[in-house]
Amino acid sequence: MLQPLPAQPGMREDEVDTPALLIDLDAFEHNLDRMAGLLRPTGARLRAHAKTHKSPVVAHLQIARGAVGQCVQKVAEAEVLAWGGVLDILVTNEVVGDAKLARLLALSRIARVAVCADDASNVARIEAAAEGAGQRMTVLVEIDVGMGRAGVAPGPDAVALAARIAGSPHLIFGGLQAYHGSAQHMRSASERGQAVGGAVDDARRTVEQLRQRGLDCPIVGGAGTGTFEMEAASGVYNEVQAGSYCFMDADYGRNQDGVSGGFKQALFVLATVMSAARPGLAVLDAGHKAVAVDSGFPLVWQRDSVRYTGASDEHGKLEWGSETSGPKLGEKLRLVPGHCDPTVDRFDWYVGVRGGRVECLWPIAARGGLA
Amino acid sequence: MLQPLPAQPGMREDEVDTPALLIDLDAFEHNLDRMAGLLRPTGARLRAHAKTHKSPVVAHLQIARGAVGQCVQKVAEAEVLAWGGVLDILVTNEVVGDAKLARLLALSRIARVAVCADDASNVARIEAAAEGAGQRMTVLVEIDVGMGRAGVAPGPDAVALAARIAGSPHLIFGGLQAYHGSAQHMRSASERGQAVGGAVDDARRTVEQLRQRGLDCPIVGGAGTGTFEMEAASGVYNEVQAGSYCFMDADYGRNQDGVSGGFKQALFVLATVMSAARPGLAVLDAGHKAVAVDSGFPLVWQRDSVRYTGASDEHGKLEWGSETSGPKLGEKLRLVPGHCDPTVDRFDWYVGVRGGRVECLWPIAARGGLA
Repeated sequence: MLQPLPAQPGMREDEVDTPALLIDLDAFEHNLDRMAGLLRPTGARLRAHAKTHKSPVVAHLQIARGAVGQCVQKVAEAEVLAWGGVLDILVTNEVVGDAKLARLLALSRIARVAVCADDASNVARIEAAAEGAGQRMTVLVEIDVGMGRAGVAPGPDAVALAARIAGSPHLIFGGLQAYHGSAQHMRSASERGQAVGGAVDDARRTVEQLRQRGLDCPIVGGAGTGTFEMEAASGVYNEVQAGSYCFMDADYGRNQDGVSGGFKQALFVLATVMSAARPGLAVLDAGHKAVAVDSGFPLVWQRDSVRYTGASDEHGKLEWGSETSGPKLGEKLRLVPGHCDPTVDRFDWYVGVRGGRVECLWPIAARGGLA
Repeated sequence: MLQPLPAQPGMREDEVDTPALLIDLDAFEHNLDRMAGLLRPTGARLRAHAKTHKSPVVAHLQIARGAVGQCVQKVAEAEVLAWGGVLDILVTNEVVGDAKLARLLALSRIARVAVCADDASNVARIEAAAEGAGQRMTVLVEIDVGMGRAGVAPGPDAVALAARIAGSPHLIFGGLQAYHGSAQHMRSASERGQAVGGAVDDARRTVEQLRQRGLDCPIVGGAGTGTFEMEAASGVYNEVQAGSYCFMDADYGRNQDGVSGGFKQALFVLATVMSAARPGLAVLDAGHKAVAVDSGFPLVWQRDSVRYTGASDEHGKLEWGSETSGPKLGEKLRLVPGHCDPTVDRFDWYVGVRGGRVECLWPIAARGGLA
């Protein structure tokens, strides 16, 4: 809460205090433009996912390039975005509990807000909360299209829940949430294609059954950075919810056949070698509290012979082959995070760099544990 | 930065918004008292490690029970503690870079601050920074007693570095930092005993060689929650740097023969079941951004038949056997984090609970990425 700023505009990158979270602004802007260009011919809308970036600043840059709004995973993210002037927000998730529903309804007075549901009793709670607040709330039905996490079964179960929403006086049926998260990280394009093919079939069938009941789907949403081109081309999905594309990470880099669309790595953790007391080993000031390791250790940027081989709370170990000269004490290195979303959540500030200089600092305003 | 508070004093625990980081205050106070009682007969001092708790409030409670001060891993933690009135701080780590050294020296005007070194060129930079600030800085030599991370070799290398510190006009030789981190999580007491036995031998030999050079060690520090009783009984270590003991976690719980001293689990992540759309599966609102999984998934407190089997960014999956009834939609559950330190770092607030009610909220003031 009282963290000093890691940098000031105008500084050289090697003057930035560490560990710091860098955005390579050229690569980041390339990614935003690239996504807009890829989606334009498909007619699918981009509703970029803010769980990746947690920042109204990034959201507005996405919207300036054509995104229709933002997705969030939780009420706290929706609040920070709405307070930062982002006015069209879909919570791609269930919201359970009267306190959270009251916060969401308070928010819907200043922004267009929608939420997902996968349970009839929860729909009844949302209806009661909306009635109590004197408001109407848009609710999408989440269907499980193969991830095996939240969501009702596609087909009749989804139709029944949608009918219940449409029949609730203070609710508006908003469509389908049909995200296949685990497909994003399948390594081959054919595996991803097979998984998304099943999701598209599930969504198409459910949309048709809803139409037979007289229920239209303003939104059929899903997809992530690993698969969005398939959903966008399906003719069923009309909104794409990619998040990571703006930053990328080492795990998406491991998807074979390149990641869809040639996005560039734009997010880095800058770290300093703080100890090099033993041959072949250096210790960085970036461990578990600076970089997420749930999808593997970070990579060392443009130093292929140097490997990040171990993390503890505040330290990272680097090792390299004897034929190579290793990083020196005090040297600053860029790390490519294994998983961008939880890495971003560990920091308070983005440090935007271009041409070796700090150009801007942006607050990661929606980071933090509370849902 | 704009996160709503998860709770208010007086609330029932089941009214706390989630995910939230709970301290069971009875268990926490038991742990503080227990550590004080275990160390009293040994004569070893407690310098509790703030990398675990990141909070001046917790630090002052430890000091009120006899701790001589605090350890930290980084300058940003030292700053927040000193600004919060903690006046005796050891950075158990190397500090590299002029900007960080300037911050440390600024801090040493309001608190007693010491730092570690394992490199002669870094000692020269600290001397130059201290001279520039018109101050004196206490520097300990870090020796590698078996962890294979930072630190010079015990014996002559350590003595040479200590002599260089003692011969620097603006530096004071402060003793030895001799922490064996990997020993803390060895599963059997005999493995931990063997590792710490080697560390004690290394430290003893180095202390003796220093004494022969006329260099006394005001501090010989190290040890963690898994081994501190051994270091405290060694007659060589005079300061114990345990941190996790105040909270505990599932990984320490897996140490066989109970963890030293019978500490109680005092830290929990409170989470809500947000989806239960499939038989035998429930989804919690606590994933990677609410609980660290680097030392394994969290356990479900007092629900042995329910297992946390998968984490994504904002979700945790719960599964249970068919013979058991599972958690219900909207139910709140306590999770025992696999690893306490990086879990704490994900939150802005502790919610202190006692007897089912919220008693206090304390800021986790030193959380965040910057070193």
